[in-house]
Amino acid sequence: MTQPLLMHINNTVFLRDGRLVIVDRRLFPLKTEELICRDYEEVARGIEMMAVQGAGDIAITAAYGLYMAARDLEKEQITPEQLRISLAIVKERLFNTRPTGFHLGALLEKIWSRIVWERGDIAQQIMVFIAEAVERQQKRSELTGRWAEQVLEDGDKVLTHCFPGPALLYMLYFAAENGKRLSVIATETRPYLQGARLTAWSASQLGIPVTLISDNMAAYCMSTNMISKVFTAADRIAMDGTVANKVGTYQLAIAAGYHHLPVYILGYGGPDRNCVEGRNIPIEYRDPEEVTSFNGTRITGDLVNGFYPAFDLTPPHLIKGVITDRGIFKPERVADYWERK
Amino acid sequence: MTQPLLMHINNTVFLRDGRLVIVDRRLFPLKTEELICRDYEEVARGIEMMAVQGAGDIAITAAYGLYMAARDLEKEQITPEQLRISLAIVKERLFNTRPTGFHLGALLEKIWSRIVWERGDIAQQIMVFIAEAVERQQKRSELTGRWAEQVLEDGDKVLTHCFPGPALLYMLYFAAENGKRLSVIATETRPYLQGARLTAWSASQLGIPVTLISDNMAAYCMSTNMISKVFTAADRIAMDGTVANKVGTYQLAIAAGYHHLPVYILGYGGPDRNCVEGRNIPIEYRDPEEVTSFNGTRITGDLVNGFYPAFDLTPPHLIKGVITDRGIFKPERVADYWERK
Repeated sequence: MTQPLLMHINNTVFLRDGRLVIVDRRLFPLKTEELICRDYEEVARGIEMMAVQGAGDIAITAAYGLYMAARDLEKEQITPEQLRISLAIVKERLFNTRPTGFHLGALLEKIWSRIVWERGDIAQQIMVFIAEAVERQQKRSELTGRWAEQVLEDGDKVLTHCFPGPALLYMLYFAAENGKRLSVIATETRPYLQGARLTAWSASQLGIPVTLISDNMAAYCMSTNMISKVFTAADRIAMDGTVANKVGTYQLAIAAGYHHLPVYILGYGGPDRNCVEGRNIPIEYRDPEEVTSFNGTRITGDLVNGFYPAFDLTPPHLIKGVITDRGIFKPERVADYWERK
Repeated sequence: MTQPLLMHINNTVFLRDGRLVIVDRRLFPLKTEELICRDYEEVARGIEMMAVQGAGDIAITAAYGLYMAARDLEKEQITPEQLRISLAIVKERLFNTRPTGFHLGALLEKIWSRIVWERGDIAQQIMVFIAEAVERQQKRSELTGRWAEQVLEDGDKVLTHCFPGPALLYMLYFAAENGKRLSVIATETRPYLQGARLTAWSASQLGIPVTLISDNMAAYCMSTNMISKVFTAADRIAMDGTVANKVGTYQLAIAAGYHHLPVYILGYGGPDRNCVEGRNIPIEYRDPEEVTSFNGTRITGDLVNGFYPAFDLTPPHLIKGVITDRGIFKPERVADYWERK
């Protein structure tokens, strides 16, 4: 079985000749176009413009930005203290690119706390941490996919929203290996169409029958028995089991609840320990132009405003299980993740 | 107050030099492009390709097709009986262009039953019936809008889906006249974007604040008190109160129910007397290409299928009221429409 391109971050975010290459996710599968970032500011802009997507991948990309800044600063004639101050500003810049996810901030802080400043070679130290993070993320995706595969039965019809990342692909991969016949229905996920461009495309590369619908068709499909289980990812999970994910997740979960269909969250590395309740999660409001235009063409009248909350919050009672690298949790008990090895 | 273009069918579907002009709704508001139909077959194709939209407008357009066929047949050397047989075939062709709505079939049958065959001048007879139908539809839209205006309160935040037709615009028009300050949130309504292109544009022409969202954002907006009432139209209403309307209506109604928000249906001319139960309503499945492509560009991988149910069914218990030209009905009692003058 071929492994889709998006099953490993190293295929789409990597260093080449000292520059960070981001294979632009906004153009898949039509075009494979590289965004070349020469410094941390270009990395930050690449994250902001969504050339890279997915909480884990965004975090690692930001870490590369920190690495590049350290590397460039170390070439200059500055004191270790000046380096540290400058790098702190860079960290803040990268941190603020996307507010809703928490992996980004968590990874930057983790790396920051592990730097041994007196040892020098800061860039090299950061690079080691990035390599570890990539490996950890890949392992986490695979483990989450393995746990998720266990809730699937032969004949399941899986509804997805947005791009739930490599764990979804691992789940489908392992299910196929185990002889389970599945089909996938992907919501296109306006306005960025990640479902159409990333999920549907990647799942079809696994040889699984994939059907694309627009976001307003999910409830109809549920009512006609075209769907048996719903899977999405999470950009952040609060300790109370509230899930922040791509806008539309909440609406799907309500529709699934109405049709008595289970909703599973691919929760990868568990909840954010610093986020007690769902209402603490900041929602990112993106440029309204992203809704009032499509492919650069305005789709409505000049007097019409747009509104684009990029994420929404799904309460725990609408979720059947949060699937992580450490097992499957009832959303109300997802804080137990941190008790388990 | 200016009246938006789409408040009257005569602005977008009319005869000129013996040809039917359809101002192509798929291109609004970016372009005003005329589709010129020289004969009934071109009219039928115009309906199929959705150059004209909305149950009432489709019906009148089809009637124009019948008129053009009668006019052309009357120029030929055929017997009245041959004319009648040929015209019956034309009626069938026009009838089959769109299966879900019922106004189309109802208007064609009504006109058909009123033709006095022995009197001759069939085309001219049909033209009189069309003029009556246009006037009746306009009156019906205005009356429906007047009734709908009564459920609005100052400060209401109206969510719409697809293009609910002139009644919605009349409702907003009368509300503004009565000093009610309203705002509108329109779902873009993929894949044809009628909400973005027709509803949001038309409502903004009335000077009302309009915000466009993608179809997956409605529940989020409901959860943050951005919406107080939901309004959609209906392509067909069964006598049991089930509403067939643009796909996505059902999903919105479920989300509205979850948030205890009222859903009103602009039901114009009441339910279809020949349709006892919702499950009798045929759902039109359109070309999957319309989902897998956008503006002619494919948005997903080659191996991915599309699925496009153009309509869905909303059960009566999710609906607060069906608003018609004869008043407002509980959906379970919508059959009473036919008792009321």
